[in-house]
Parts: sequence; structure tokens; C-alpha cells
Amino acid sequence: MSASPPFARVVIAGIGLIGASLALAIKAGGLARLVVGLDADARVREVAPNLGIVDSIETDPVAAVRGADLVVLAVPVRAMGSLVQAMAPGLAPGTIVTDTGSVKCAVIEAVSPHLPAGVHLVPGHPVAGTEHSGPEAGFAELFRDRWCILAPSEGTDAAAVETVARLWRAVGSDVEVMDPVHHDRVLAITSHLPHAIAYTIVATAADLENQLQILAASADPQKVTTAEVIKYSAGGFRDFTRIAASDPVMWRDVFLTNREAVLEMLGRFTEDLIRLQRAIRWAEADTLEALFRRGREIRRGVVAARQAGRFVYGENGERKDDTTGE
Amino acid sequence: MSASPPFARVVIAGIGLIGASLALAIKAGGLARLVVGLDADARVREVAPNLGIVDSIETDPVAAVRGADLVVLAVPVRAMGSLVQAMAPGLAPGTIVTDTGSVKCAVIEAVSPHLPAGVHLVPGHPVAGTEHSGPEAGFAELFRDRWCILAPSEGTDAAAVETVARLWRAVGSDVEVMDPVHHDRVLAITSHLPHAIAYTIVATAADLENQLQILAASADPQKVTTAEVIKYSAGGFRDFTRIAASDPVMWRDVFLTNREAVLEMLGRFTEDLIRLQRAIRWAEADTLEALFRRGREIRRGVVAARQAGRFVYGENGERKDDTTGE
Repeated sequence: MSASPPFARVVIAGIGLIGASLALAIKAGGLARLVVGLDADARVREVAPNLGIVDSIETDPVAAVRGADLVVLAVPVRAMGSLVQAMAPGLAPGTIVTDTGSVKCAVIEAVSPHLPAGVHLVPGHPVAGTEHSGPEAGFAELFRDRWCILAPSEGTDAAAVETVARLWRAVGSDVEVMDPVHHDRVLAITSHLPHAIAYTIVATAADLENQLQILAASADPQKVTTAEVIKYSAGGFRDFTRIAASDPVMWRDVFLTNREAVLEMLGRFTEDLIRLQRAIRWAEADTLEALFRRGREIRRGVVAARQAGRFVYGENGERKDDTTGE
Repeated sequence: MSASPPFARVVIAGIGLIGASLALAIKAGGLARLVVGLDADARVREVAPNLGIVDSIETDPVAAVRGADLVVLAVPVRAMGSLVQAMAPGLAPGTIVTDTGSVKCAVIEAVSPHLPAGVHLVPGHPVAGTEHSGPEAGFAELFRDRWCILAPSEGTDAAAVETVARLWRAVGSDVEVMDPVHHDRVLAITSHLPHAIAYTIVATAADLENQLQILAASADPQKVTTAEVIKYSAGGFRDFTRIAASDPVMWRDVFLTNREAVLEMLGRFTEDLIRLQRAIRWAEADTLEALFRRGREIRRGVVAARQAGRFVYGENGERKDDTTGE
């Protein structure tokens, strides 16, 4: 490691789970001379420096970014445009602006118009997180062995992309560069649809208590209570609730800004679920068994991939050794 | 612990994940003089005694159950009726037959007609499992701090129910007695619906590769590959795939034998998902945020309950201390 850190002044805008974790990882790795926080929430501004997450904290976007070589937007996606507009007077040519949002096209669209000439936008998305929110939930190891996707527009400065890639590698991530449109589709199925389902099923379950069930099979309708659902959640339900605990504002913004891709995935999923429903109604044993066997095969693929990013994939999904070895 | 074990001869029919785990737990706890396995699969019959899962293994149902005081059915639900029919000549009055199936009404219906007079049926369901199958996946601690639901019909011998309850408590479970119809409804939402969703979403994802996507947002349709879905599954998808790895035949039988309740839960869930889909399409930010906040609250309930069965619940779902203390 060189004597002088790769960054002089890094600004993290939004000290939530992701922002706090990145700040801690940068400090732990000695990657910046100064890590400056920026947050609109007074409670966060008090907590973040006290917990040693940032070296200093700012309320004024212009003051915060002045002299920064890297600005990381870690706020909900729909807040990014106006935030960068507010920062703009402090952004000097050569500064790199990156973000951690779960959608990429909408970020590029919202942020680009406000960037002064010579400021580079490198859209990013660390595919990492926990079900917890807020600065207290942050930890330096969150990004270790995770993928970070960078999704620059055509014509983005290659050196700026490489600088941001180095940062993510330094905090333990494997970096992939992807077209922003493609990113939004991939994440619609791997992350946004699962969240839509998770939020929905917990509501469906809780509603059972609010309504007498009408079950043709029984002359004696009995309510299923939320307490019972919670009590027996080890049967599968619990897996789904973990991601239903994710930050509501962040997820509201994801669904509003990746609408097209999410609506397509929802349509496909619902279609497939209704096919399953029909197979159950008509007692199509072979259809059910075939579908379930296929599910198990796909799961085996997930286990083999270890998610951690140690491998790359061939065109047919076969695992190959990564260029980094192993 | 008394010098003589509570059971003389326990027969475990079906040495899969659940059967093997129960056999191991019974042996570890010294709960039976002899644990006898019964399995139709020659490979399992070779493996199970070699791994020390059972003391001996049988192919003939009549020979296996002769002299048994407890017979545990741990085969797929739709196999139980004919299995008990085959055992019947060996079942002596006073013998207790119990099972580990995920549905209860269908088991009672299928098994009861074949039981000789004086043989007690105590339907049971340990709410425990992993995504792995087969005898090698079994381990003695599987049932520790889990719920086991017993769902006897009216008129079932109370002493037989208590004997089975003591067995499950001895292997570490908390026991709840529940009406079979109610059991099947509760599990339809907490376990069967999540499995239906999990199996479906992995198929939906894998199908993306098989078809060009038509996305209105883009003039350049790009396929999302299965390899990409697997690679970025940490974004939420992975949680759903775990239970999609469960045993296909077991789950086929669950859906075929709990049809009414599962179809109702599927109907409710789909309705709620389509409401969410509409809110996304119409950019109803407040609706989305409210739904997501509610999901988070319910998740907090799951965490507070710790699933493990250390607490009981009041009518409004509030947690109370269990009678066992803590």
C-alpha cells in the first residue's frame, strides 16, 4: 500500500446502511485522507461522527463537495437529482460523482443534467445489503466478496470508471461493468421482483386476521392470526420476510424508477404462478413434479456460484475460473 | 433420565431428511431400545445403517412394525395410505402411528381406514427442515427449538397424544396441539404458499434466457441469462431459491393434498400482488411506501418471535412469557 491514500476528500451523501458501510470501509482501508458525510437528518448528523463513521459531517451540499475528488450518492434514487443540483456550484472539473442506487437509467437521467462540465458521472450499484437500515447498521465488511456493478453511459471517461472500480475492489468487491438498461433488467428479476413479492406476502398473511376466511372445505371458518403466521414462519415464510424489512423509501423509489422492467417481470411471474395454480386445481401431478425438479436444479446453480463473485460464467451458465485465479 | 427408555421399538418409515434426523435424535437421546428403519429404496437401506442412523433396516412393512410401540410415517403424504395398508397385519392394538407430513387432513383421511382396532393415529408435523434431502442430510439437532404441531381428530386417545408430545419435547421441540383443518390453513400461508412462489420465481427467471425480452423502454432487447440471475442473486433472489431446493415429490404431494387452502392463499396473494403492480404502473408513491412500511413492521414481529417457540402469543399477537419461564 502506498503512503498517500488514493483519494484526498471523499464525500458520502446519505449515511444509511450503504453510505455508513462504505465510509467505514474507506476509513478501514486508509483509502482517503478525509471522509466527509452529508445528511439531511439531524439525528444522523449527530450519530455518524460519534460512531466514527465519518471524519466530519456537513449540512450544506456545496460546502461538503468543495475540494472533493469523489462524491458518492447513497440516498434514495429519487432524491439524487435535486441533491446533485444543490451540490453543483461546489463541484470542480475532474471530480467524480458516483452512486449506490439499485436502478441506473433513472439515476443517469436525473443526475446528468445538473453536472458542471468536466465532472464525471460513474453510476454504480453494490449488490449488497442487509435488512437493517440507518448509520448504526453499517459495517466495513458489507461489500466483501460481493459484486459491484458499474453502469456508465457511452462516452463516460474510462479513467474515471477505473478509479471507481479500484475503490470497490479495495473494499473487497468484484466489479462488473454493464450497460445501464441491461442492469435495470437484471436487477428487476434478481432483486426488485423478490422485494415486491416479499412485501406482498407479508401483507397477505397479516390480512388473514382481518377477515373471516371462506374456505369451501370447511363448515367452520377459523381465522388464521398474525401471531400464528409469525409463530410458524420457519416453514418458509420467514425467508421471505427478511427482505420485506428493507427501507420503505428506498424501495418506493426503486419501483417508481424501474417501472417498465419491474412491470414486465411481475407480469411474467404472475403468469407462471397462475399456471402453477391451475396445475394444483386440476391435480396435474406430473406438471407439479417437473416444475419443482426444475426449481431444485436452478437452486443448485445458485449454490455452485456461491454468489460471492469468485467465478465467471460461460454463455451456457457453466462456471469458469475467474481471471483472478482460484 | 430413567434407566429404561420410553420406547422399546420405534419404526421410522422413510429415511429422508426428516426420518433420518428423528432416528438420530431418538438414538442420541436414548429414547428407544431399538430404532428400525423401513425404506423402499435399496440405496437408502444400505446407507442408513452404515451411517448409524438406524439400528436395523427392513423392506417388509409387516415385519418392520411387528412388536413396535411407535411407528413414524416420514414418507411423502400421498404414499402414507398404501404404506399403512401394507403394515396393517403387523400392527398390534396399543401401537401408536404418527407421521411428519406437512398436511394433516389428507393424512387422516388416507391412513385412518387402514388402522386395525386399538391402533392410535396421532398426526404430527415438525415445522423444521432444510433445503437438503435424503438420509445423509439428517442430523439429530434438526428439531431443537422448533415447533411440532400435533393435529389429532376428535376422540383420539389423549394418552397416545401425550406420548407423542413427550417424544417431540425430548428431541428439543415445543409442541402445540391444533385442529387438523386449522393446521392445513395456517401452513398453507406460512409454508405452502412460500414454496409455490419460490418454485415459480426460479422458473420465471430461468425462462428469461429462453426468450427475447420485449421491453418497451428499449429499442435494443437484451437477454437476461440464467448465469446473470445466479450471479446477482444476492439482491434478494437467493433467499427465495433456498426453499425451491426442497424435495420435489414431497412438495408435489403437499400441493395435491392441501388444494383448497393453497388455492385460497394463492388467490389472495395474486390479488394483492396485482394491487401492487397497479400502484407501480400508476406511480402511486404513497400506496407503495405504506405497503412497504407495513411489511417492515410484520418482519419485526417475526424477529421478535424468534420462531423458536420460546414465547406464546396473546389474542392481538403481543408476546407473553411462556409458561416454561424465561
